Amino acid sequence: VEGSDFSFAHEIRVRFAETDAQGIAHHAAFLVWLEEARIAYLDRFTGGYEHIREEGYEALTTGVHLEYQCAAAFHDLLRIRTRCCGLRGARFRYEYRVERDGEVVADGYTTHATVDRATHRPTRVPAWLVDAISAAEERPAS
Amino acid sequence: VEGSDFSFAHEIRVRFAETDAQGIAHHAAFLVWLEEARIAYLDRFTGGYEHIREEGYEALTTGVHLEYQCAAAFHDLLRIRTRCCGLRGARFRYEYRVERDGEVVADGYTTHATVDRATHRPTRVPAWLVDAISAAEERPAS
Amino acid sequence: VEGSDFSFAHEIRVRFAETDAQGIAHHAAFLVWLEEARIAYLDRFTGGYEHIREEGYEALTTGVHLEYQCAAAFHDLLRIRTRCCGLRGARFRYEYRVERDGEVVADGYTTHATVDRATHRPTRVPAWLVDAISAAEERPAS
Amino acid sequence: VEGSDFSFAHEIRVRFAETDAQGIAHHAAFLVWLEEARIAYLDRFTGGYEHIREEGYEALTTGVHLEYQCAAAFHDLLRIRTRCCGLRGARFRYEYRVERDGEVVADGYTTHATVDRATHRPTRVPAWLVDAISAAEERPAS
Repeated sequence: VEGSDFSFAHEIRVRFAETDAQGIAHHAAFLVWLEEARIAYLDRFTGGYEHIREEGYEALTTGVHLEYQCAAAFHDLLRIRTRCCGLRGARFRYEYRVERDGEVVADGYTTHATVDRATHRPTRVPAWLVDAISAAEERPAS
Repeated sequence: VEGSDFSFAHEIRVRFAETDAQGIAHHAAFLVWLEEARIAYLDRFTGGYEHIREEGYEALTTGVHLEYQCAAAFHDLLRIRTRCCGLRGARFRYEYRVERDGEVVADGYTTHATVDRATHRPTRVPAWLVDAISAAEERPAS
Repeated sequence: VEGSDFSFAHEIRVRFAETDAQGIAHHAAFLVWLEEARIAYLDRFTGGYEHIREEGYEALTTGVHLEYQCAAAFHDLLRIRTRCCGLRGARFRYEYRVERDGEVVADGYTTHATVDRATHRPTRVPAWLVDAISAAEERPAS
Repeated sequence: VEGSDFSFAHEIRVRFAETDAQGIAHHAAFLVWLEEARIAYLDRFTGGYEHIREEGYEALTTGVHLEYQCAAAFHDLLRIRTRCCGLRGARFRYEYRVERDGEVVADGYTTHATVDRATHRPTRVPAWLVDAISAAEERPAS
């Protein structure tokens, strides 16, 4: 996958608390970073996750697939290239490439479902959110 | 403080994800273990935290004081000796001694306040909970 | 996949710290539980992860694939059915089914590579570990 | 304590993964943020924690005291006002005030000891680090 295909990038710095006794970032920390990248994406393009919740929706994570290409170390600055794709009904998907100085550290995707915040029942991604994401993804790549 | 003064003990095993690049358990992990010990204490003596929430209460953590005497390592089996004390109005306090094979690894306390679950306003610890905790603390030490 | 195909099961109880503002267990917590299940598996069948490290090996996580079928809540008791398979050279794989009262909460797999602890270079899974895992997986299912 | 007394401030944004089922940031997350503030402080004034480790030292956390004045919520931008004080032999201390829009969310301190990285024995804070911290703390307050 070409890096230029990603509509968005978010940077994080590996925290000491995120390392483990192997001296590298623990693999579960990546899921937290991907979530932070999604939140930053929503902030940038859609009015933010808080807005989505206020409108009565919640987005659940229904799956994760991640491949770790090399280790990340304490204090590494990681660039999480992110795009949202595959909106269909209540479902959508984010794809990622985590890079350090252009080198791929990990890549993969997460899948999600929109639910009604009160009932937790699946509900279509609202049209305004579909439109905001489509507009974001049709932009010239950043 | 004598170990025999503690009314309760809860055991945890240090997870690999809880270690850091110093090769020891990260100091923030202790707060999660103390919370697990409080939950186990409430299960044992009061009908459980879920019951407290169902009754319309929430317990907030308002303070923490912890001194680390020595490092804990991956896979260490830690015994968290725990007692609840100082109930007054909406406030109460837990004290702890974290031990490994009888050696003190850390000790300290956390402070808490009971709030109404809906309003998050401070509200007196309910009488039934005061009674359950008093009964637990007056038992012969385990 | 039939539950009877899993050679091992490990139980965890969802911690309060593992929940998030959606009121359910955060999806990243599952990776920590799967790791705890792997550690317990190694304790049971191979002499433990500490032994593997003492022998000069380290096991890296190279990938994760997990599908969340339903939410887990605070205090839920989850049974993580686990098996190790696909040992080939330096690589192996664990498969999981996370259950609550027989209901599938999540399922998936993680992939791993054995490395030399000093150099972090890939190195074949040692024969004694292959043998221990083979013996575990050929047992009648528990 | 006056805010103007703090030599440094570091900002963090509350992650979704750091919230819990009470709908607020979990109290253990604060320890991770304080650590991130210390790392940023060392980056700014002393050449960074990595440099300290390369010089053969490690800094252990020996204690924490934190009082939570009010809850922090998902996505809150928190300003962690930080100063280092009380260097004596191998020991030193950081003090903090966590603010949101000028409101105090939490305050407290952590205590630390410098150890030899290889032996984990206490060892005096090296003179160059004492000097760097003294210079930082004698600056006009930021």
